This record gives sequence, structure tokens and C-alpha cells, in this order.
Amino acid sequence: MIIVFKQNATVEEKTKLKNQLESKGFQIHASDGVNASLFGVVGDTSALDINLLRVVEGVEKVMRVQEPFKRANRMFHPEDSIIDVAGRKFGGKKLQVIAGPCSVETQEQVTEIAKDVKAAGATLMRGGAFKPRTSPYSFQGLKEKGLDFLKNARAATGLPIVTEIMSPYMVERFVEDVDLIQVGARNMQNFDLLKELGKTNKPILLKRGLAATIEEWLMAAEYIMSEGNENVILCERGIRTFETYTRNTLDVSAIPAVKRLSHLPVVVDPSHAAGMWWMVEPLAKAAVAVGADGLLIEVHNDPEAAWCDGAQSLKPDRFAKLMGDLRGIANIVGREL
Amino acid sequence: MIIVFKQNATVEEKTKLKNQLESKGFQIHASDGVNASLFGVVGDTSALDINLLRVVEGVEKVMRVQEPFKRANRMFHPEDSIIDVAGRKFGGKKLQVIAGPCSVETQEQVTEIAKDVKAAGATLMRGGAFKPRTSPYSFQGLKEKGLDFLKNARAATGLPIVTEIMSPYMVERFVEDVDLIQVGARNMQNFDLLKELGKTNKPILLKRGLAATIEEWLMAAEYIMSEGNENVILCERGIRTFETYTRNTLDVSAIPAVKRLSHLPVVVDPSHAAGMWWMVEPLAKAAVAVGADGLLIEVHNDPEAAWCDGAQSLKPDRFAKLMGDLRGIANIVGREL
Amino acid sequence: MIIVFKQNATVEEKTKLKNQLESKGFQIHASDGVNASLFGVVGDTSALDINLLRVVEGVEKVMRVQEPFKRANRMFHPEDSIIDVAGRKFGGKKLQVIAGPCSVETQEQVTEIAKDVKAAGATLMRGGAFKPRTSPYSFQGLKEKGLDFLKNARAATGLPIVTEIMSPYMVERFVEDVDLIQVGARNMQNFDLLKELGKTNKPILLKRGLAATIEEWLMAAEYIMSEGNENVILCERGIRTFETYTRNTLDVSAIPAVKRLSHLPVVVDPSHAAGMWWMVEPLAKAAVAVGADGLLIEVHNDPEAAWCDGAQSLKPDRFAKLMGDLRGIANIVGREL
Amino acid sequence: MIIVFKQNATVEEKTKLKNQLESKGFQIHASDGVNASLFGVVGDTSALDINLLRVVEGVEKVMRVQEPFKRANRMFHPEDSIIDVAGRKFGGKKLQVIAGPCSVETQEQVTEIAKDVKAAGATLMRGGAFKPRTSPYSFQGLKEKGLDFLKNARAATGLPIVTEIMSPYMVERFVEDVDLIQVGARNMQNFDLLKELGKTNKPILLKRGLAATIEEWLMAAEYIMSEGNENVILCERGIRTFETYTRNTLDVSAIPAVKRLSHLPVVVDPSHAAGMWWMVEPLAKAAVAVGADGLLIEVHNDPEAAWCDGAQSLKPDRFAKLMGDLRGIANIVGREL
Repeated sequence: MIIVFKQNATVEEKTKLKNQLESKGFQIHASDGVNASLFGVVGDTSALDINLLRVVEGVEKVMRVQEPFKRANRMFHPEDSIIDVAGRKFGGKKLQVIAGPCSVETQEQVTEIAKDVKAAGATLMRGGAFKPRTSPYSFQGLKEKGLDFLKNARAATGLPIVTEIMSPYMVERFVEDVDLIQVGARNMQNFDLLKELGKTNKPILLKRGLAATIEEWLMAAEYIMSEGNENVILCERGIRTFETYTRNTLDVSAIPAVKRLSHLPVVVDPSHAAGMWWMVEPLAKAAVAVGADGLLIEVHNDPEAAWCDGAQSLKPDRFAKLMGDLRGIANIVGREL
Repeated sequence: MIIVFKQNATVEEKTKLKNQLESKGFQIHASDGVNASLFGVVGDTSALDINLLRVVEGVEKVMRVQEPFKRANRMFHPEDSIIDVAGRKFGGKKLQVIAGPCSVETQEQVTEIAKDVKAAGATLMRGGAFKPRTSPYSFQGLKEKGLDFLKNARAATGLPIVTEIMSPYMVERFVEDVDLIQVGARNMQNFDLLKELGKTNKPILLKRGLAATIEEWLMAAEYIMSEGNENVILCERGIRTFETYTRNTLDVSAIPAVKRLSHLPVVVDPSHAAGMWWMVEPLAKAAVAVGADGLLIEVHNDPEAAWCDGAQSLKPDRFAKLMGDLRGIANIVGREL
Repeated sequence: MIIVFKQNATVEEKTKLKNQLESKGFQIHASDGVNASLFGVVGDTSALDINLLRVVEGVEKVMRVQEPFKRANRMFHPEDSIIDVAGRKFGGKKLQVIAGPCSVETQEQVTEIAKDVKAAGATLMRGGAFKPRTSPYSFQGLKEKGLDFLKNARAATGLPIVTEIMSPYMVERFVEDVDLIQVGARNMQNFDLLKELGKTNKPILLKRGLAATIEEWLMAAEYIMSEGNENVILCERGIRTFETYTRNTLDVSAIPAVKRLSHLPVVVDPSHAAGMWWMVEPLAKAAVAVGADGLLIEVHNDPEAAWCDGAQSLKPDRFAKLMGDLRGIANIVGREL
Repeated sequence: MIIVFKQNATVEEKTKLKNQLESKGFQIHASDGVNASLFGVVGDTSALDINLLRVVEGVEKVMRVQEPFKRANRMFHPEDSIIDVAGRKFGGKKLQVIAGPCSVETQEQVTEIAKDVKAAGATLMRGGAFKPRTSPYSFQGLKEKGLDFLKNARAATGLPIVTEIMSPYMVERFVEDVDLIQVGARNMQNFDLLKELGKTNKPILLKRGLAATIEEWLMAAEYIMSEGNENVILCERGIRTFETYTRNTLDVSAIPAVKRLSHLPVVVDPSHAAGMWWMVEPLAKAAVAVGADGLLIEVHNDPEAAWCDGAQSLKPDRFAKLMGDLRGIANIVGREL
């Protein structure tokens, strides 16, 4: 951490701060220039609050040198983490594909789609039971009943279940019934929920917030990991930009960035990013080409009649065809699917 | 709502959609142009899911004409709402000023600051007991003990308490002890929390999300109101932009915009927007000049020793001086403080 | 175009506007609902100024139904445009790869790199002679001398030249010497320059502005095309987002979006988007996978000694290896390279 | 400037870089920590290209300590600059108000409005002769004839002329006829135009780019100043954010930020930021309250018939009334108007 002093900072101010930091176990390397004078603070600065330093008399600004995340940081964990979700391994050579409808509607619907996506090569299934909707007047999900339908579909196909949690009240039930618990973009900084999930040992799929930086996303992972649960899989699902033609802008550069900064696996959700089914296919290909560890794709057998987000769902036959292309691209970039 | 058809949409597709919408009670006004053919959908479209229509065969795009919020909408409630918080009225001629430390630290600290800000003219006090921090390694607040300190400070000064809630588990306790329950920017779309608060009758201070549009913010208010609690006060606290010199960018234009779209009162938090105490004063003046119904200002008696966000806290004497200037500006724009 | 009236708009106001628009040759389809009353304006509205209508007494808001661009619009030109640059065809089955250094430094440097990239399969070469730099104190390019070096390199390799223009003063010289004239991101809305280039018949490579929407980008293309020059190739080079780890965020979804909205070819510059050489490779693969018509890649034989942007330059051997992978991905998505 | 090394950087790599920088006259202060090792580079680093250092073998990242602008920097010029525009002084105690129509339409129109705004207290007049429009099919301005009309209006009222330049071809004519030459937001990084204007001694009104940071804006000022022309007045006119209700988001915090970083005067254009006349008034008040050195306000005597941007123009009587309120606020914040 670098502390830059104001031009008129006094020797007393600097000495006071130096003593304070040294008493906390940090080493100080001072450097005086013509226009700027600064301290290099050496030690584990991740718990040092940058805002507390900015207010110190004489300090102009404070800059971090190291990332503020520790358990998620590749520096302290150079090998890729492999997260096991009911036997499916995220982060290794093989890519995992999670597919299914935006929301669970009926037992028939979810079981049928689960069979279709399994036949096409998907290795896990998704389906929303609790739905975070912008409007309180939109369909909010089948809730507990939706979980039951998912369990039956799992029994019928063997595909592990991925579904979103919205409230700490539901943690116990999800731990019991769900294989990979999704935290949605709008809850990425719902810190109380993250902490509760950190106390379980279930794999967590942590979606990136709509306007979150990569650092904030990794700090959200750190919230879960700091409570003891290191089974975190990241999910890029598009960020908000000025572009309104697409629902969100898929940030493919986040994939190589995250893989350099962290050891955690990262998958891509092209469906929410695009918001339009015809764009899901090229984005899915781009995601595999750029090095994602897996995909999360919405598939519906009757998109026009879907209760939610039909516009961005692929039909099972298009999904099957897409899987073929993805397999080819995966091979070229040294992966399997 | 306007539905624009594709150039190659068939008569059958249009007829099918027309019948479907009419069966739901909407009227359809069709209009055919050279390059575009469209439907005007007449009726209460707030519960109509725009994404369900986008996926219909033949549809090119769907555009809303009316805002999707109803209870928060000034169209259906032309007069300003006045929200009563323990006798302090938000939304009328008189501005309300909420002041206090970022976080509650000790009983002495919070009581002393409460006395100082009351003497300077503040009408409510604030102080964080539960703190949403980007890092799990930063101070997370005194929690329940912090609430006790706030209650004692209220007993000593008579100032109503404003403090942030982070979890649905705490709703009962907050309803008991707090006068104005704050929902922070990171929880603006924590829909489960909003619904729980909607079932109470406590006034809610709803902060705007870091990258939220005004429409999303009002839809978050709608979540609370749709459950029956119409006591919502909005709080602009800066939005994320590319500018890194300030912590966030205070969006003063949101004030006249919200007041035109909605009947709810809106206050401004210049402290979080600025992130630097010397910028709080000009921003507070701008907020009053632009027409805000109140302010939320961080004041600390010893910012250098603050446990959190001292950099953006005013000392009591600066706050008192600022209040004088704000009073003058309020008078010029036809308000009182 | 849809004109939405205020609730209290009078019959006189509506009749006056109706007559006004009809006298300009538009047809008006009126539609009256409970909460909103509106006009559908039928005809070629691309020249109708939306802001002039917004100010009319009684009007609440105005919404476009059709895109404001015409010559760039696929609706009026359903087939893909193929742009010929000295025999290299952009927009057909075969992808074009433009490679070379960020800035032209010496004759030896540019000729040697041109030979290297040609050997690896590049079909055009790039090199900056006029450099738009954020700081006036940074190297501004070799200017005219740089153009001479590029011409000599072309003579030595046969590769057509792509280089950036910054001033209308240079149009004549560029038309004489350059094969594909690049307009940089910062000049995307330098309308006077666009108009001058529209009066030539040279192919133009139009980079997307740092914070431009797809519609603004296509409107910039329209500026060139409306003057008569329809030889426009678009170039996605990353947009500004909150993410600071990468220089810019490559918007891969812009590729399928542009190809749906417009008939113009679109290429991708992964080097400027990433700002770091190790990220150029995965982004280039993603660009081909998503359907780009070509790539613009920075290659330098001695990045550490480069005068500009060495950090994002590939060395020739890495570039050659990358070309192999790109070829494989191109085949999978039905293209050639 | 701080150079952070990779964990595996070798002594040779560090020594090589140290020698290289010392040979350019910089002093190096090295600091070695457990997880990071770094160099503090002491000297005038404003001409040091950060991207050239990032590519050096062993370097992880490079961080600036000092701002990259020099002539615009308050550190080297602690007093406020006062810029004289035909006798009107920008940057002193008195605020300057520039008012007039968006575009010059007829001699009668511009002269009449000039008289109106003068009567209301405006001290300079504005009017667009060359108009940068998003669409090539929109009205592009009266061009030279517009300049003639402005000159006649100046002769009739004595108000100095402020108008926008779009092309380097027009510099000579503008220097001859215009009192304050405006560079529009879209040309903020049209570096060739900035350099040409830097060779004159005319005052320049430099608008902030739509998505520009404060640092980029000051670097654009630096482009003009580095050529010798230090008569630069900055103009905040709203930045692009996700909010679509307003045309742009007026960044009032940029005013205190710029005044702390730079000695240059800064004025505010609330009309372009708002895009709606009823919002211009509260934003203008906020601008004065926050400390702006002046305002740029669109006034039209017949907004409904305006050729451009009528929606955001005030009528002369509203403008006159607004001026009264602004005077009151100016007095409270220690200024005059």
C-alpha cells in the first residue's frame, strides 16, 4: 500500500502515522521526491481500511498495490481450484454445461426439458423457483413447489440441480435439496446472505453484479470463503453499459482476467447477457473460445409460452446443434466438452 | 404499450396476438405503415410482462408508453406525499436534516454527536449499527449493541433514529426500535427484504442503487408499496460513473426527475457521493438548491479516529456553519430549514 | 415514430400537430387510451428531428420505431456488403487479418514486421503514423515520414496499408497513399472529418467511440455514406465500462448486433480492448467465434522497446501460432481465414 | 510514479530498469516487501509513458502518484486563473452568464434574443452556427452566415460572442470574429483541432466529453495550453450514465473537483445536461450553489418553432426570473452575479 502525502504535510504528521502503522506490525519504506513524498506500507494490508488512512492529517491519497482479496487470490493459491458439484468437476479440462428453463413452470415442462438437455450433452440442469423480478407485478416463481419439481426431474435424469436463492430463510432447504446454489446478480453484495452461505459447505454459483468490477466480484467470493466455504464458482452474465440493443454486455475479457487474478472456476451465462435467443449461440461460442470453464444456457421447449424470459431461450434442437459447435471450439483451445 | 411487428409478420400472427390481448381485457389500436406495422395496447399494462411479448412470433420489439410503477406514480397520486417519521414530516415545505456518524462506535460518541447535530439544527440522527462493507475483513458494525446506543442517544436528545437494515431476520427488532429504516444502495434490489418491509408500516428510507436507473429505483419503492406500506422516502446517494476522483457521482437531476414522476419525497446524501468531507458542503448546497426534501449528512466529532468513513465526515462546527448557508438557499427556493 | 401526449393535452394541440405533420407528407394514426393518447407517425421519419417534436405543446414524449440510419440499414439493403480494399474483400466468407505495430518507428521495423505478419497469414498491415495520445507530452507519431515508411513496406510485401487519419488537412494525402483509412475512436463523431471522407471513394475503417452506442456508431457510418462513400468497414475496439483491470471492455455482442442491424462488415481490434498482450489471444479467438469479419492485431518484433503500446503487442511467433487456432475456429463457424 | 514488480522479477530486470530510469534523470527509491517489491520514481514523470513501463520484463503494474497535467495543474499555479473574454472576467468573484439560442436561425431571432438576455443580466451571448448533429439528416447550422448574424447581434447589444468550432479550417475566421471559441463535447479529444487552437491566443471554452473523466478533460486543456494558449475555460455539460430520463447527468461534483485540481475557471451548461427546459432552472441553481464560475444557458423566444433543441430552451421571461434566484444563491456562497 502506498500513502502519498500532501506537499505541506509536516514531519510530525508523518512520524505519527509511521509509528501508528509500525505498532500494527507494518514496515514503512519512506520516499521523498520533489513534488511528492510517500510511504510504502509493507505487510498484510488486506485488513487495513483504505478510508481510515485517507482521512489522516497530511495524507493526500492512498493506493493499493496488492489486491484486497486473499482466499480467492491466485497469488496464495497458484493452482486452479476444482469444485465438485455432485460429481461434476468445474475448473478442470472438461467444461460443464448447465441448461434448462428460466423458470420452473410445471413438472412435465421441467422434466421434459431436463431430458432434452441431457440428451444434447448438458451435465447439470437449471430452473428458477424463486425469481428476482424488476416488477412486483411479474411472476415471482413457484417457490418451494418449484424445488420439488426440480428434485423429481433430477430423479428422472440424474442431472444435478442449479437454482437461485434469494433469502437467508431458505439456506437450510437449499442445502438439503440443491446441488449448486446460485446467488443472482442483484444479490452479489447481499453480504448477510453471502455469510450464511459461507457457513455451509455447498458449492455456490456467484453471479457478477450488473455494474460490479472484477475486484468487487472477487470480494463477494471472499465473503463466502472467509466464513469457511471455498466452493465458489464465478459466473459472468453480462454487465450494464450504455448499449441498449442488448440486455447486458457480455464481458468476455473478464474470463482471462479472473483466471489470472484468482484460482476459482468461472462460467458464462450468455442467455441473460444477450436477452435474445439468436444472440445466445455466437456468445456461447465466444465464451468457450475465450476460456470459460462452463456455460449456463436457457433452454425451453416452448419459448413463446414460457412464463418468463422466453425471448432468450433456445429450443432443444438448436441447443443440441450448438453443443456440436462448442465441442469443436473447446478442442481447439485445449479443452473438452 | 406499443408492439412493433417485423416486416414479414403475417396476418395470422397479428390476429392471434390481438385476440390474446383482447381476451385479457386490453384494447388494440392497429396502425400499418410502409416500413412498420404496430399495435397500440390500451389498458393497465403495468402487469404485462414486456419480455413475454417480445418472444411472440412476428414481433420485432415492444416499447412501454407508461411507466411500470403505479403506487409510486404521480399520475395516479398528483399531490406530494408527506411521510411522517416520529413527527418529522418529509415532503412538505420544511426540509429535514438527518445527521450523525457513519458507524456507531461507543455510547459517548453517538450521544455527543447527537447533541451536537441537534444543536446545529438537525431534526433526525443517523448512525450505522449493521455495516455493509466491501471487504469481509473490515469492521462490520456493533450490530444489536449499536441499536441500544442509538436508543439511548434518542432518549437523551429526542432525535428520531435512522439506521440501515441488512437482513430480513432483523425486521421485527428494527420496527420496534428504529424510526426510519434505511435500505442501503447494495440492497435496493434485495426483493425479499423489500417485501418484508412492505408488510410493516414503518417509514423506509430507500437508497438508490449504485448503477440503478430512476425507473428501477421507483420499481424498488413499488415493491415495498405493493405490500401495503406506502411510507417510502427516496434517497439519492450518488451513482457509479467513469469518474474515479469522487467516490460516486451525485445525480442532482434525479431530484427534479423523481419529483415529476412520483409523489414520494426524496432526500440527498452528499457524504457517500463525495467520499471527501470538503466536497460535502458544496454538494449539500446544490442538493437544497435543486429541490431536495432533505439531507443525510455524516458528522463525526473525531473523523481521524472514526472506525469507518471518517474521510467524508464533517466536524460538528463545520456542520453548524453549513446549516446556516443551507437555510439561506432553502429560503430562495421557497423552502424552510 | 410514436408521439405520446400529456393527459391534459387539448384537441386543438393534437389537431395542430396532426395538420403540421400531414402537410410534411406523413400519415397520422391516432390512438386514445385511458391513461395515454398517442399518434403513430407513418412515413420516412429518419429526417424528422425528435427534439423538435418533444417541445410541442401537449406532447409528453416521442419514441422512434425505426432506426434513424438508412444507407447503413439492413432493412433497405438485405445482402451483406462486400468492401474491397486493394483486392482484399471484407464481409465475405474469408476473414481479413490486419496486423502490425501500434506506431511506425523506423523503416527497418515496419518492413520487418510486415514481412513477419505476412508470413503468418495477415492480409493487410497496420501502423500508426499520426497518433492520438491522451497526453500532449507523449510521442505523437512520425507523421508524413511514417506514411513513407509504410509505402516502402507495402512495396516490399504487397500488403495493403491501414493507418489512422486525424485531420481533414490530410485527406488528400491519405487517399493517395493509404488503402484503408482508419478513423479512430476519439474521432468517431468528428463529423467534419467524416463528411470529408464521405466525399472520397476510399474504404474507411470506422472505429467505435469509447462510449458510443451501436446506433451512434451506425449514424457515424451514415455520415460518411450520406456523402456518397458507401465503403465503410466497422471496427469494434472495446468500450468504456467500470472495469479498470482491462483497458476497455471488448463488446463481442456488438458483432451479431451490427450484422443484424446493418449490411456493413465489422472487424474486431482485441489489442486496444485488452491493453495487455496475454489477453489479446483469447479475445481474438472469441472475436472469430462470435462472427467477426476480420481482426486488427498489434504485432511488434520488440515490444519492450516499442515507442507506444508495447504492452498489448504480440511478438511475431505468438501471432503466427494464434493464426493457426483462429483458422480452426473460423472453420467451425463456417468461415475461412 | 510507482512501479510494482512481479513476485518472480529478477534482480537483473530491476537493475536494468533502474539504470534506464536514472539515465533519464529520475531518482529511484526501491522498497521490498513480502508480497510485493516496488520502485518509487522521483522526478517530472508527466512525460513518462506509463504504457512503455508496463511492458518491461518483470513489471506487474505502474501507478501514477502525480497528475499527468502540468500547465492546468493547481500544484504549479496555486492562484485561480482569471480569463478575460472581451472584458468579461471568468474565474473571479463575479459569475458570467452566457445565454442565447441553440442555433442561429435568422438575424431578427438572434438579435432579439441577445437583447432579451442582456436585459435579464446575461453578460455574453451564445448561438450555434456550426452544429454537430448525431444525424447527417438534421439541420447542420447556418455556418458562415450564422457568424455574420452573431456579429450583427454583438454590434447591436455589445455582448461578446460564444460559438462552437468544428473544423481546423475555420480557426482563422473564428479568431477574427468570435470572442470565446467553444470546443464541443464530441471534439474534446480532437487533438489536431486542440493544437491549432493552442497556437492562437483566443479564449477557448472546452466542454467535457460525454464519457470523459476529469483527468482526460484536463489533459485536453493541457493540449491547448502546451501550445502556448493558457486561456482555457472548462465547461461541464453532463456526462453519459445509465439514466435515460435525462439527456445527460450533470456532474456537479466535477466543479469542486476541478477547482481543487486546477486553477482554470469552470462553467456549467445545464441546458444540454437536462434536455428539458423545466429541469434547467433547478440545475442552474445547483450549479451556482456548488461553486461554478458561470453558466451557459439556452434561451429562445419561440422554443416551439426553434430549429434545434427547443425542448431545453427557456423563454426570456423565465430566464429573467431565474437570474433573480441565481443572484440570491450566488450571494450566499460568496459570489456575485
